[in-house]
Amino acid sequence: MMILSGEKFIVDYLICGDEAQARQNMHDICVEQTVEFPEELITDSDIKDNIIGHIYDFRAVSSHQWLARIGYAIETTAFDMTQLLNVLFGNFSLKPNVRIEQLQMPQAMLTHFYGPRFGINGLRDRLRVFNRPLLCSALKPMGLSAYHLADLAYKMALGGMDFIKDDHGLSNQHFAPFERRVELCATAVARANQETGNHTLYLPNITADGETAIKHAKWAKEMGAGGLLISPGLTGFGTLQRLAQDDAIDLPIMSHPAFLGSFVTSPTNGIAHGVLFGQFMRLAGADASVYPNWGGRFSFTKGECESIVSNCKSKMGAIRAIFPAPGGGITMPRVPELTAVYGCDVIFLMGGGLFRHGPDLVENCRYFRALVEK
Amino acid sequence: MMILSGEKFIVDYLICGDEAQARQNMHDICVEQTVEFPEELITDSDIKDNIIGHIYDFRAVSSHQWLARIGYAIETTAFDMTQLLNVLFGNFSLKPNVRIEQLQMPQAMLTHFYGPRFGINGLRDRLRVFNRPLLCSALKPMGLSAYHLADLAYKMALGGMDFIKDDHGLSNQHFAPFERRVELCATAVARANQETGNHTLYLPNITADGETAIKHAKWAKEMGAGGLLISPGLTGFGTLQRLAQDDAIDLPIMSHPAFLGSFVTSPTNGIAHGVLFGQFMRLAGADASVYPNWGGRFSFTKGECESIVSNCKSKMGAIRAIFPAPGGGITMPRVPELTAVYGCDVIFLMGGGLFRHGPDLVENCRYFRALVEK
Repeated sequence: MMILSGEKFIVDYLICGDEAQARQNMHDICVEQTVEFPEELITDSDIKDNIIGHIYDFRAVSSHQWLARIGYAIETTAFDMTQLLNVLFGNFSLKPNVRIEQLQMPQAMLTHFYGPRFGINGLRDRLRVFNRPLLCSALKPMGLSAYHLADLAYKMALGGMDFIKDDHGLSNQHFAPFERRVELCATAVARANQETGNHTLYLPNITADGETAIKHAKWAKEMGAGGLLISPGLTGFGTLQRLAQDDAIDLPIMSHPAFLGSFVTSPTNGIAHGVLFGQFMRLAGADASVYPNWGGRFSFTKGECESIVSNCKSKMGAIRAIFPAPGGGITMPRVPELTAVYGCDVIFLMGGGLFRHGPDLVENCRYFRALVEK
Repeated sequence: MMILSGEKFIVDYLICGDEAQARQNMHDICVEQTVEFPEELITDSDIKDNIIGHIYDFRAVSSHQWLARIGYAIETTAFDMTQLLNVLFGNFSLKPNVRIEQLQMPQAMLTHFYGPRFGINGLRDRLRVFNRPLLCSALKPMGLSAYHLADLAYKMALGGMDFIKDDHGLSNQHFAPFERRVELCATAVARANQETGNHTLYLPNITADGETAIKHAKWAKEMGAGGLLISPGLTGFGTLQRLAQDDAIDLPIMSHPAFLGSFVTSPTNGIAHGVLFGQFMRLAGADASVYPNWGGRFSFTKGECESIVSNCKSKMGAIRAIFPAPGGGITMPRVPELTAVYGCDVIFLMGGGLFRHGPDLVENCRYFRALVEK
């Protein structure tokens, strides 16, 4: 006999179309995302009543937009990150006119997820920086040798960056192979930390195929890297989840949004910004979530960014709050304005803007740092 | 010194907007997808000339659509599936108005990818079926016990299905735990094969978090499963790649499109159907690619399905041709029409339609089989 707790997690789907189409879509979601089977042929009442999605609400948002609130038995997810995403949107990602707007998980479900190992407080403890926004930059451009990248890392650490991450495009190219790069950059940052007394963290990009991502994380740990950068859109969210739980690795993780954009670029299909870059990243174990800030070279709005921030920090059972890490076109002149909006618990990620500020990278970093110490 | 072969892989991006915007976007792609760095600050000529994307063509498709052909140094991918996707569309997935239409890879790049282990010919050899479309069904609904699912598997094998896959929603839920389910279903199919003399393959769904997918694949092998089902949208394409290359596992792999739909639902952002469900699946190592057929309960058009077929089978260096596996609403009456369109080298995936046909599952399977043996 199947035993279900009766606990549900609740998803708000935004459905476009006329009311009849929207109601049909809502019923289809309940079936397609669970049993994917002709409802009339299901004889087992447990499956009919408790596995098929349950409708809690249906209401108009506008003349052609509807909000359908559907609950699923928490056991359908097997408490596995990949299967949670599958129940939420696996097959329905293939249909137009349906978008995930909100996700609410009960305590009985959240306790199965480890979440971020450090979160905002844990990350501040590692850095010993408690009262200002944190600063991050990226090692680039792709094509530099491991030696040159390490030189940049040294300068950035000397200049007072809190995080120095690999650019998310640095993989295992032969011109800066992963192992050599991580060894040199971690050593360079450690040397700078000895000189400054800071605790700057170097975050190598461990994104890679299959178990290689995990092998890379272990190498990063061994070489003394201070954290990890990963793109779950490329590795799967399950790899992030797996790494966050690893007691032997025990490193803060920053997530990158690469290859996830198609979920948020359409207003009528996909997943809301706050759910994808806030809730999913946090639930899977990121301690900081990188996303493109408004007003830079990407098109996220201020409201979309604020919804990410809210989902990074709002109450979510015992799952720790995490840092929003806006990037993608942040420049020096914008730092005061952005600090006013984001407050203290934010990581500003400045790449190009840091290099463009002036010829001396160390001085540019110091200038950036002074902007948030005012 | 950096050494590049000079070999490029070529991507056609469809860009929407007026000509000036489109040209700007094209230049931005070249930089954003590679160095992500202010071009004017790059002094290294190798990086400037060979790492930044190279424009080969720009032309109007309509009054507000443009095709930009961009080449990237093959070495930027590190010959890693995840990094290939990152160069193709990592950051630009986050921008509206850009869609990948076509991908061409030179021989020097393709030789680094293992591709599908079996492909069409290898799969036919395993099944010893050479002259008709192949048939697949799915074990469901979610909520059945492992024992009940195994009973369905036995009946489907007895009825002459070539493939019996787990429904993609069967994960490791406690009502049909992965290990127990695979053991029972593989045993049931082996028993049926002994009775029929057929070589029906059972494909358990190994999709799971991190290394668990690989652990599941090993368990499937040990229990005598005939193949694997995986959703690379959930596990990452790199996990598919990793499994296809494993000599010890040595099992055919069927890919499922779950959680990939948002890449294809917008005409102005994402990745063309043929590239995503044809080329990517094939390059990463799927022997068969499941996708929703036209005219069923999903919205792919016949033309989109044909572009997937074409990319599954067209010349691609030494990478084997693979089976298109249309599903999502195929019914008995449509089989003759679909056979006329798809020809012999196709896997018809019928789930609900097979159960709906009549009360006796074995007879339903025999009926389905007879439709393709005519």
